[in-house]
Amino acid sequence: MSPGKTQDGRVIDYQELQRHNKATDCWVALHGQVYDLTSFLDEHPGGRRLILAQAGTDGTEAFEEVHSKDVISRTLSPETLIGALDQETVPEKAVKLPGSQPKGTMAEEGKPDLARVLNMYEFEYIARKTMKKGAWNYYSSGTDDEITLRENTSAFQRVWLIPRVLVDVSRINFETTILGYPSSAPFYMTATALGKLGHMEGELALTRAAGKSKIIHMLPTLSSFSLDEMTAVRGPDQVQFFQLYVNKDRKITERIVKQAEARGCKALFITVDAPALGNREKDMRTKFVDDRPAEMEEKDVKRSEGAARAISTFIDDTLCWADIPWFKRITHLPIVLKGIQCAADAVLAAQHGVAGIVLSNHGGRQLETARSGLEILPEVMAALKSYYADHPGPEMEVYIDGGVRRATDVIKALAMGAKAVGIGRPFLYAMSAYGQPGVEKAIQLLKDEMNMALRLLGAPTLAHLRPDMVDARNLGLHVGPPIRNYLSEAVYEPLAFGNHKL
Amino acid sequence: MSPGKTQDGRVIDYQELQRHNKATDCWVALHGQVYDLTSFLDEHPGGRRLILAQAGTDGTEAFEEVHSKDVISRTLSPETLIGALDQETVPEKAVKLPGSQPKGTMAEEGKPDLARVLNMYEFEYIARKTMKKGAWNYYSSGTDDEITLRENTSAFQRVWLIPRVLVDVSRINFETTILGYPSSAPFYMTATALGKLGHMEGELALTRAAGKSKIIHMLPTLSSFSLDEMTAVRGPDQVQFFQLYVNKDRKITERIVKQAEARGCKALFITVDAPALGNREKDMRTKFVDDRPAEMEEKDVKRSEGAARAISTFIDDTLCWADIPWFKRITHLPIVLKGIQCAADAVLAAQHGVAGIVLSNHGGRQLETARSGLEILPEVMAALKSYYADHPGPEMEVYIDGGVRRATDVIKALAMGAKAVGIGRPFLYAMSAYGQPGVEKAIQLLKDEMNMALRLLGAPTLAHLRPDMVDARNLGLHVGPPIRNYLSEAVYEPLAFGNHKL
Amino acid sequence: MSPGKTQDGRVIDYQELQRHNKATDCWVALHGQVYDLTSFLDEHPGGRRLILAQAGTDGTEAFEEVHSKDVISRTLSPETLIGALDQETVPEKAVKLPGSQPKGTMAEEGKPDLARVLNMYEFEYIARKTMKKGAWNYYSSGTDDEITLRENTSAFQRVWLIPRVLVDVSRINFETTILGYPSSAPFYMTATALGKLGHMEGELALTRAAGKSKIIHMLPTLSSFSLDEMTAVRGPDQVQFFQLYVNKDRKITERIVKQAEARGCKALFITVDAPALGNREKDMRTKFVDDRPAEMEEKDVKRSEGAARAISTFIDDTLCWADIPWFKRITHLPIVLKGIQCAADAVLAAQHGVAGIVLSNHGGRQLETARSGLEILPEVMAALKSYYADHPGPEMEVYIDGGVRRATDVIKALAMGAKAVGIGRPFLYAMSAYGQPGVEKAIQLLKDEMNMALRLLGAPTLAHLRPDMVDARNLGLHVGPPIRNYLSEAVYEPLAFGNHKL
Amino acid sequence: MSPGKTQDGRVIDYQELQRHNKATDCWVALHGQVYDLTSFLDEHPGGRRLILAQAGTDGTEAFEEVHSKDVISRTLSPETLIGALDQETVPEKAVKLPGSQPKGTMAEEGKPDLARVLNMYEFEYIARKTMKKGAWNYYSSGTDDEITLRENTSAFQRVWLIPRVLVDVSRINFETTILGYPSSAPFYMTATALGKLGHMEGELALTRAAGKSKIIHMLPTLSSFSLDEMTAVRGPDQVQFFQLYVNKDRKITERIVKQAEARGCKALFITVDAPALGNREKDMRTKFVDDRPAEMEEKDVKRSEGAARAISTFIDDTLCWADIPWFKRITHLPIVLKGIQCAADAVLAAQHGVAGIVLSNHGGRQLETARSGLEILPEVMAALKSYYADHPGPEMEVYIDGGVRRATDVIKALAMGAKAVGIGRPFLYAMSAYGQPGVEKAIQLLKDEMNMALRLLGAPTLAHLRPDMVDARNLGLHVGPPIRNYLSEAVYEPLAFGNHKL
Repeated sequence: MSPGKTQDGRVIDYQELQRHNKATDCWVALHGQVYDLTSFLDEHPGGRRLILAQAGTDGTEAFEEVHSKDVISRTLSPETLIGALDQETVPEKAVKLPGSQPKGTMAEEGKPDLARVLNMYEFEYIARKTMKKGAWNYYSSGTDDEITLRENTSAFQRVWLIPRVLVDVSRINFETTILGYPSSAPFYMTATALGKLGHMEGELALTRAAGKSKIIHMLPTLSSFSLDEMTAVRGPDQVQFFQLYVNKDRKITERIVKQAEARGCKALFITVDAPALGNREKDMRTKFVDDRPAEMEEKDVKRSEGAARAISTFIDDTLCWADIPWFKRITHLPIVLKGIQCAADAVLAAQHGVAGIVLSNHGGRQLETARSGLEILPEVMAALKSYYADHPGPEMEVYIDGGVRRATDVIKALAMGAKAVGIGRPFLYAMSAYGQPGVEKAIQLLKDEMNMALRLLGAPTLAHLRPDMVDARNLGLHVGPPIRNYLSEAVYEPLAFGNHKL
Repeated sequence: MSPGKTQDGRVIDYQELQRHNKATDCWVALHGQVYDLTSFLDEHPGGRRLILAQAGTDGTEAFEEVHSKDVISRTLSPETLIGALDQETVPEKAVKLPGSQPKGTMAEEGKPDLARVLNMYEFEYIARKTMKKGAWNYYSSGTDDEITLRENTSAFQRVWLIPRVLVDVSRINFETTILGYPSSAPFYMTATALGKLGHMEGELALTRAAGKSKIIHMLPTLSSFSLDEMTAVRGPDQVQFFQLYVNKDRKITERIVKQAEARGCKALFITVDAPALGNREKDMRTKFVDDRPAEMEEKDVKRSEGAARAISTFIDDTLCWADIPWFKRITHLPIVLKGIQCAADAVLAAQHGVAGIVLSNHGGRQLETARSGLEILPEVMAALKSYYADHPGPEMEVYIDGGVRRATDVIKALAMGAKAVGIGRPFLYAMSAYGQPGVEKAIQLLKDEMNMALRLLGAPTLAHLRPDMVDARNLGLHVGPPIRNYLSEAVYEPLAFGNHKL
Repeated sequence: MSPGKTQDGRVIDYQELQRHNKATDCWVALHGQVYDLTSFLDEHPGGRRLILAQAGTDGTEAFEEVHSKDVISRTLSPETLIGALDQETVPEKAVKLPGSQPKGTMAEEGKPDLARVLNMYEFEYIARKTMKKGAWNYYSSGTDDEITLRENTSAFQRVWLIPRVLVDVSRINFETTILGYPSSAPFYMTATALGKLGHMEGELALTRAAGKSKIIHMLPTLSSFSLDEMTAVRGPDQVQFFQLYVNKDRKITERIVKQAEARGCKALFITVDAPALGNREKDMRTKFVDDRPAEMEEKDVKRSEGAARAISTFIDDTLCWADIPWFKRITHLPIVLKGIQCAADAVLAAQHGVAGIVLSNHGGRQLETARSGLEILPEVMAALKSYYADHPGPEMEVYIDGGVRRATDVIKALAMGAKAVGIGRPFLYAMSAYGQPGVEKAIQLLKDEMNMALRLLGAPTLAHLRPDMVDARNLGLHVGPPIRNYLSEAVYEPLAFGNHKL
Repeated sequence: MSPGKTQDGRVIDYQELQRHNKATDCWVALHGQVYDLTSFLDEHPGGRRLILAQAGTDGTEAFEEVHSKDVISRTLSPETLIGALDQETVPEKAVKLPGSQPKGTMAEEGKPDLARVLNMYEFEYIARKTMKKGAWNYYSSGTDDEITLRENTSAFQRVWLIPRVLVDVSRINFETTILGYPSSAPFYMTATALGKLGHMEGELALTRAAGKSKIIHMLPTLSSFSLDEMTAVRGPDQVQFFQLYVNKDRKITERIVKQAEARGCKALFITVDAPALGNREKDMRTKFVDDRPAEMEEKDVKRSEGAARAISTFIDDTLCWADIPWFKRITHLPIVLKGIQCAADAVLAAQHGVAGIVLSNHGGRQLETARSGLEILPEVMAALKSYYADHPGPEMEVYIDGGVRRATDVIKALAMGAKAVGIGRPFLYAMSAYGQPGVEKAIQLLKDEMNMALRLLGAPTLAHLRPDMVDARNLGLHVGPPIRNYLSEAVYEPLAFGNHKL
């Protein structure tokens, strides 16, 4: 008899577990406990198929590939727990198949040496070529036609730099502070979900690399590792922030926030642009790859209707400005609102006395044709300048994220008024391709580019960056979808001539 | 002796019918009656060849593929009727060839499961791959270089959304009314011609799907099924509108309008942008595929000159503003003008007291380089605002159609002032690929997208949609033909170098 | 002894002719006369090689392929005539080779039936596929990077039409007058050089088709047929204009102008944009195809330096405003300046009392990155309106040419103020592909398009065309070279990644 | 015993030299002297690998391929000299391999005849096809995504010319002066580094061609030949300028400047846009082609961090406005600042009393997304006009460089206020493909184009060029990266459909 008993002490043997193996009756064992996931199937952000594949078995190994242990308590309601699995009844494990080896060690032979990687694009390219398709699709996808996704990078390329010459640039210094905490560069590692998809060390690789490079890491709510694990690897002087998806159950939210504060996180970034998950079709296709029995098809038709409802189980879609004072009461951490997208909301944020805002469209993963953070920046800075002229006092810091691939991108945002810039996917791709050394290299490449670009711009320190160093007149100019609209083009049949091939 | 006699009781035997088998003497039997179509050849919207292929035979089966029975009385003048066909003289039918099976059942094996279709583009793509070429060309073609056709979709992608955050979006409601009739979503199924080309159930599949989904269907004049058939399948609370091509013979027009009202249609949408049919070359090429005797060639040269004149037999090209009062007299239905394209005409419509207008370029099928309905919308709303400020009273509803592929497109139009948006081709493509279930799925996908996008936009109801939620500054910005001009590119020979291949 | 003696009665036998067969001593017999073309080699617009290939022989047949007989007296100075060729000394002609058959009959089998051609692009496409490379290159080439060439078509596609509805369009009439002469459509056939390159009937096919279609043909100075031949085929009521390249020798100019007037041409279009021939590299490469002895290479290096100088032998590069009164004195014909490209010169033209101007960049064959006639039109109309407000009296007519491919292009120009539009290459391509019937079909297609577009625009007559029917705000908007810059792209090597292929 | 002794007379035999053959102890013999280059490895602009390949051997031959002899004294500190190599101890040279033949003679057979080259693009194309990859990459590369590199050419294509007609253009004259020195055309040959990479005659071919063509050559600091060698081949009336990278050691700088003046250079162009070398990744990849021992890998990771620091050994990154008076004291040459990029710095230059400025972004090789010289020109001319209105006196000349490929580009810059235009890469490519005759041909082609374009523009002399002859309204319009962003596109995976291939 195995020890780990539940409240009512119920113990389940493997033969019983095996009987609950279908969509209408779905048990799965995780870390020695047996859960009834039948009603959770439609709420699983990763789709019902991943759970159904483990129905009636011990799913711990598959679970571990993506999740940290504490995700169970964070997402499953207590009544789903059936009891403890009697380990003695479990048959011998099958030999591990080659396909199930940890992701971080795959396709090593074909990759370029890390020393030869020259820029962020190259990390992305190598990740695309070497990652598992499903993981690549999860990281890289955006919403709908991916117009906003591509616009995020494209926007920076409509802003031009205006360098000054004959300035002494022998001493370059781009250290700064973010919310008063020192950072070796004016960018931070923003929160990204499910780090284990790309590399077995996941968020641990990311946060260790950030620590070694003395930049700040914003720990995600939807991490693959637990908050304890992520804060445990923090270096002595390292600063970590915490990103929060607000749970509908405010008790859970309060517990998470207090845990983050207790574990030493220095700021709370509340995501405000995700009352529902965006429609990421590249990602959704991954889940349709394998065949399915007809029984599930009908179900799926309904599922699509309920996708928005499903996520609402986790994320509070009633969250509104009136809730901000409550957050201030439950924590001493400075509060930053992540996902502000217009001047009016920026002023509201200032009025609610938060410490900062992130101008962000969530990496192009939420509302299609939302504008880039960079495009919003000038109108936000102007509105805040006007607001603070009337309301003197401490001023919020303004950050942007989305689409950054070059240090010149960072510099443009700073010249236009941002205090710092969040970078997400580039570090995920570096991690997926090369693990922690890849992330460190990526940070270093950006710092090298910073050093070079500040010299060439004639701006030896960040204080030298001024609005007149950029020509941003074309930022609001959109002549069509960035690059091209691949979906429109795919369905349009070009005109041709009579009997002739073009 | 067969019963169905004509006025003068003339009965024709099959051997006589067979003698009238050429362009200068062309009889065809349809549903047991023999017609002399010689003078109708040049007036047939589908071209003379389709009729000539049936000259001297019973063309009922080919006729049925595209037309409903009542199209005969709607388009042929009484004097074309020669008499009844003596059925006993008709030889045994040949065995039905595999090629003539109903369209809706073709190529089923290669199609993705309907449950896996994720968006409107995909329906279009599958339709393109599986439809008969001629049907695809008829549905998908636009006028001339198809610049306006493509611009319709492209215009939406130059408008950006400005989401608000921290708004309670737990209860999304996008029900609305159109002309006072309830609709489960702010879009309606606009009239499209010849539904049988894409699927054997044609308009019946469309209107049933609309009814199940509680959206309004606008029944077309150029339907494959009769008005009686289309209204017969209407559900208990279902609302249908009627689209009207005005016939030069006002008696026919009056009969059609009164019939629509009698059959329970709730509004009359008069098409005002089609005094002649646009020049749709992709469609025209279809008719040239097979070989022809030289005798017809010369005729065809002339035909092109007369194409505009031919259609004028059906459609009244004298229709003008002075005719509007007449329509008000013959029907109690609210009147909507479909095809308004500038502010001046919108004000004229208001002055004439109609119930609504549709800003539309007829799906890019009429005047080449006409602007998109979306681009026209802001100037129309401004002009009407000014007009109604001086002339208080009930205000027209404004709709747009053309190019909609995403719920964000619908939302943009509504934020800019439209009451609802018409959608045509996407439902035709869904029908062509999957029949009625496809259309229902398409409507549901759009509703899912609506739900998602309204949440992410911070607009839980349609009343929240305001002009400051869109950045439409680039709508009037046209840097060249949308995507590319395939005809210009096809004929331009790029510069190259001496002996070298590029 | 042959009869046709020269002034001094010298007669040359064939053996002597054959001795003058090199670049430094080059005689050629043409129509029974022997000419010393040594000094003319560098002045030949078609390049020295074409003449050298005939050095020391009878070149009449090759000459006839491109030139009319009277080109000799128009271009060669009297002192080049050596004497008459003694025909009895000429050896028997070799059998005609298949390759030298008339161009108009080539590749007939692969062409679509003329009845199936649907638009101007298609004529161009077929011409490109069936014409001799050299002829295609001469007709289709533009200057330098061909940016202006392509912009001419592209400009029309940045202008949008604003249709009016509910206008009675049952009677469409687009007849007009040009300089008071009736035209069945608001476009004319503009002058184009060397019609025989594309078809053996050359300008005769063009002018006959214009006559049958009741549109005006502007006869070119650089025609393949003589003025006498072109005017001889003129129909009873047909109107022909005459285009003039001003010869440096004013006596020759005066003789040509008076001849045009005497032959019944109704207007004189003086080309003012060609003091030198543009740099048409696509065309120039044609001349380098075959091998050459080294002796010529060095010469060619020098030739490029002298290309501008060479043409100045024919065309008067001193021509200036002060010359206009002289033209008025030598002819009663109305004078039109062809090639005006800015408002200031349009006003100068008005001040000089000419009858009209053509806004034209010479089909993109002269100054690279000159703007399109359409783009210039609004500023010219505004300047003339202002000028005539101060100087009441008869007003010039304004025409544009360049890039027209659709009737909507013509309509846009007219709505913006042009009286008529010149069309050149489309008719050349139709002629090259199908001879005179092709040209007639092309004109008819444009008229069909006119008819259709005017109906759909709600403009039954040309008087209905007003500036508020076009949205031309984007005309001056140039975001880059039209379509693409093929030369820039050809030399740019895209960035790639380490060891990976993209 | 060999004669050339060092200060302390030390003589090294070949066996000893061979022992110092690794990264931590690296001796190389050059021109009979032995140098310890261990500490120089990281400072070598061409990378450490090129030196390591010669470690412990006589590297004279490899050195000669790129450098002139005097580069040793200009870059190596005296203490790196170990002593003289005892030539008698050197083993017999190996037979020269075919691969090491001089570059200028390679691939001759496939090239078009020089006489057939028609424009600058074609030289570039041929160079790309025939040059050694490393040399091509060094010449052609730009910084980061190469947006500025491509924008330089693209900018000219957003400016349109406005020709005047009926102007006497029989006498074209585009001679001018630059800083008072006559030039046969309004462009000069700007300084470009390492001419030997492209052709064995390198800068000697360039300067001889400039002399023959009577245009001015700006001699580069980073030349392959010595200043003495470059000035020795100067023709009797030829004018040479000198481009200066300011060395941190002001004594060296002073020596170089005085040497340039003594050797007859007529002006000093001080490069002010290169306090550090730009990030040219295309070039950097060249250095990674061959395999390396693992020992070096780790080193390279560090190297990237130090790249900016390394170059600072040569170039003074403290250089600032306060240094300008010092330059005026050490030389009588007129001083021009090369690399000004905004109006504010142009005014500062005027205030510092220099003779001229070059608006330049260093050929797109320095700061990414810096604007083109052409785009900066209008704001600079306006600012200087305003400045000189308040400060009458002698005015600076303004030049631009970057992206020029056509004479129309030169003309646009002059019409907008530039005195002359610098051209670099086109001449390098002409030299690489054809040596000195290629450069002469390139200059002649540009002059031919000048002649033609001025005629067609109606501007017989440079004095006729006025701002109203260009439409530059779109210069500041940037709708995205020029042409395309190849890196962004390479990493973006287009959306696709379910099971279907697009």
